[in-house]
Amino acid sequence: MSTESQVRADDRAHVFHSWSAQGLIDPLPIEKALGSHFWDYSGRKYLDFSSQLVNINIGHQHPRLVAAIQEQAAKLCTIQPAFANDKRGEAARMIAEVAPANLNKVFFTNGGAEANENAIRMARLHTGRHKVLSTYRSYHGSTATAITATGDPRRWPNEPVAIGVVHFWGPYPYRSPFYSENEQQESERALQHLRDTIVFEGAGTIAAILIETVVGTNGILVPPPGYLAGVRALCDEFGIVFIADEVMAGFGRCGEWFAVDKWGVSPDLITFAKGVNSGYLPLGGVVISDEIAETFRERPFPGGLTYSGHPLAVASAVASMQIFKEEGIIEHARMLGDDVIGPELAKIAAKHPSVGDVRGLGVFWAVELVKDNEKSPLVPYNAAGKDAAPMNAVAAACKEKGLWPFVHFNRIHVVPPCTISVDDLKQGLAILDEALTVADSYTTG
Amino acid sequence: MSTESQVRADDRAHVFHSWSAQGLIDPLPIEKALGSHFWDYSGRKYLDFSSQLVNINIGHQHPRLVAAIQEQAAKLCTIQPAFANDKRGEAARMIAEVAPANLNKVFFTNGGAEANENAIRMARLHTGRHKVLSTYRSYHGSTATAITATGDPRRWPNEPVAIGVVHFWGPYPYRSPFYSENEQQESERALQHLRDTIVFEGAGTIAAILIETVVGTNGILVPPPGYLAGVRALCDEFGIVFIADEVMAGFGRCGEWFAVDKWGVSPDLITFAKGVNSGYLPLGGVVISDEIAETFRERPFPGGLTYSGHPLAVASAVASMQIFKEEGIIEHARMLGDDVIGPELAKIAAKHPSVGDVRGLGVFWAVELVKDNEKSPLVPYNAAGKDAAPMNAVAAACKEKGLWPFVHFNRIHVVPPCTISVDDLKQGLAILDEALTVADSYTTG
Repeated sequence: MSTESQVRADDRAHVFHSWSAQGLIDPLPIEKALGSHFWDYSGRKYLDFSSQLVNINIGHQHPRLVAAIQEQAAKLCTIQPAFANDKRGEAARMIAEVAPANLNKVFFTNGGAEANENAIRMARLHTGRHKVLSTYRSYHGSTATAITATGDPRRWPNEPVAIGVVHFWGPYPYRSPFYSENEQQESERALQHLRDTIVFEGAGTIAAILIETVVGTNGILVPPPGYLAGVRALCDEFGIVFIADEVMAGFGRCGEWFAVDKWGVSPDLITFAKGVNSGYLPLGGVVISDEIAETFRERPFPGGLTYSGHPLAVASAVASMQIFKEEGIIEHARMLGDDVIGPELAKIAAKHPSVGDVRGLGVFWAVELVKDNEKSPLVPYNAAGKDAAPMNAVAAACKEKGLWPFVHFNRIHVVPPCTISVDDLKQGLAILDEALTVADSYTTG
Repeated sequence: MSTESQVRADDRAHVFHSWSAQGLIDPLPIEKALGSHFWDYSGRKYLDFSSQLVNINIGHQHPRLVAAIQEQAAKLCTIQPAFANDKRGEAARMIAEVAPANLNKVFFTNGGAEANENAIRMARLHTGRHKVLSTYRSYHGSTATAITATGDPRRWPNEPVAIGVVHFWGPYPYRSPFYSENEQQESERALQHLRDTIVFEGAGTIAAILIETVVGTNGILVPPPGYLAGVRALCDEFGIVFIADEVMAGFGRCGEWFAVDKWGVSPDLITFAKGVNSGYLPLGGVVISDEIAETFRERPFPGGLTYSGHPLAVASAVASMQIFKEEGIIEHARMLGDDVIGPELAKIAAKHPSVGDVRGLGVFWAVELVKDNEKSPLVPYNAAGKDAAPMNAVAAACKEKGLWPFVHFNRIHVVPPCTISVDDLKQGLAILDEALTVADSYTTG
């Protein structure tokens, strides 16, 4: 049996895949990856416009990051969380150094879901309140509290599992839930809606407001000017903990260490994962304000995990942050958004009747596809099977030309590694441009 | 600043530790580890009778396992879960090969908590029922559903967070909740209690019974003969999914690949983590029966995570299982329990008035300490601060002699790596023997 056949056979017989009907998938075996590309076993090369699940911020198989993992593996793979470890402390210090000034402690987890679970736990115990407000159009992870906080269809089959979550609507200028006519109005009305929700839920019952600084999978919704500062002000007014979920938006994705830096806002807790070490090892965590850390100075924090601050994982975060600094990756990502993706997508939007909106920053962009001038989505919300055919056709056109896209509902997200070269990026955008003619063919004017 | 001082300074300033009052701890900086030992920065060497958090089954820094991680790091650190990957399929196949015959698919997670979260999700969707029965005296992880299923004090400060969990009592011959006089009676009465609980909760409302095959942190409670078969029979009778949590008990700890093998019982789902790769990288998962996998053949499974089947993590599991086979680690662990720990602890029990009970199998043993002939625990349940002084004194006496013990409530667990040499093991037990004179000094006859 060829290697590819063996990989496929083992996979189909024994691997149970995330978010899938196991009998209706045919996972493509991938042989190798480097930089912004990966290859299947037939030698077919793909330009990675998905960064896998928007996590390979540093690119695939960065040689210095690989070397750092090998070096730490030789030294010490793991030691339990109750001990102090050099890399654990160094990673925490380096994260605190790039976080807003009053966030100085880090609780490490294995990924984003656990980060949100623990952030919510901290907020509840800190405030003595129970409810958590999160938005529709959001994703926060798949464990019980995280999936309940999630505001997309992945939550539906799991409910009810955790209690205390209330969903509200965040800003979305292109499809305003508040009938706004511009970004300023959208920001003001979204804040009024949040204030009203707080008041009618009872401010004294609300532990936390949990939002993605820039909503990721559910649309790359960039907050309009003033919105995040307004959320901060509401949290201060009502004694609510502000949790910024930067699992996807942080560590370079938005051209900043943390996306909140773009708006100069300090949350009380920031959750992270993915970009912190580009997922070379499972790692996530919570960056904690001094005030919340103080709550757990003499009172035990009732949460933990065997691999909290896993030495091999945190060593990869240390190396990744060093590489980010030395290679100017944050600045590169910002430049790519400002000088390449933004302008190029604007041209694409002007050209294709199927493109209703383009939006984003850094290397975090969405192309929202519509079928007519009324902004009707090219496919229905949460479309599957035949209903999703137009989006599948666009994706197939991309793949045919060697571009691996990130597709969600009626959107193509442009989320390559932060390290992608301008040439590769332009080449990928040219393929996308071409593939969108397929989307155009589904429009009805 | 010395390296040790730097490690300590970074830790105190920036690392938020699991399960701790951050201001009341002083985490010991650890410099290195090898085999069954680790060293602090003063050069002090400790024999690891804790396997860290009962996860370093293969010992620290096993050279072949380290080499396998380095090799995979050079090849491919990560690729997203929707693709097929050689090591992902190989690890799943190897786990299925050592699992009970009808369990053939593996859903990979980052650790045990997520494994239990997803197993419960599968059981709920498979049965269309909602409740989960789990035992008092158990630990299942710290995310919302997992901590709610947990039956120890770590659950208390987190409640209420998830819904649908009902706790019942498992067998515990030494302190029988059922006033049994022998193991057979304990098994029968525990099963009657479970049957009664099922009937009064309503069998048609119960999705799953979740139990640790051998209860770990909460006492190393080995099920009496017939108990697990009885649970299996009750699950069959009432259409309930049997979930065996083998996060701690699996992969050699009990001298078996899976602890259920000891009793020839097939659960519907087995959750694992820790020993699968000795925690060299974060990894856990669920082994799934054909019947439950079939439920998700055409219906999407609504759960997932960015690092499901993480290539570097699963590659370490493949290498670890190969090493286990080639070095006879399962058999070694079984021999250590049968020929060394069991007999030696029996002698220790006979000698020390403070030792009320010893129990276990493989390299998974508890020494339960009492202060009188009435089995009064040496320290109160969930003791902290001054109340815990006698146990802290015993632990200090162990550490003083170079033994790092695993202490929980009124118990010392003997849980060294499965690879420990007979000489090291005997040396550690001799230190424990000596340290128990400190416990004796607290007894009142």
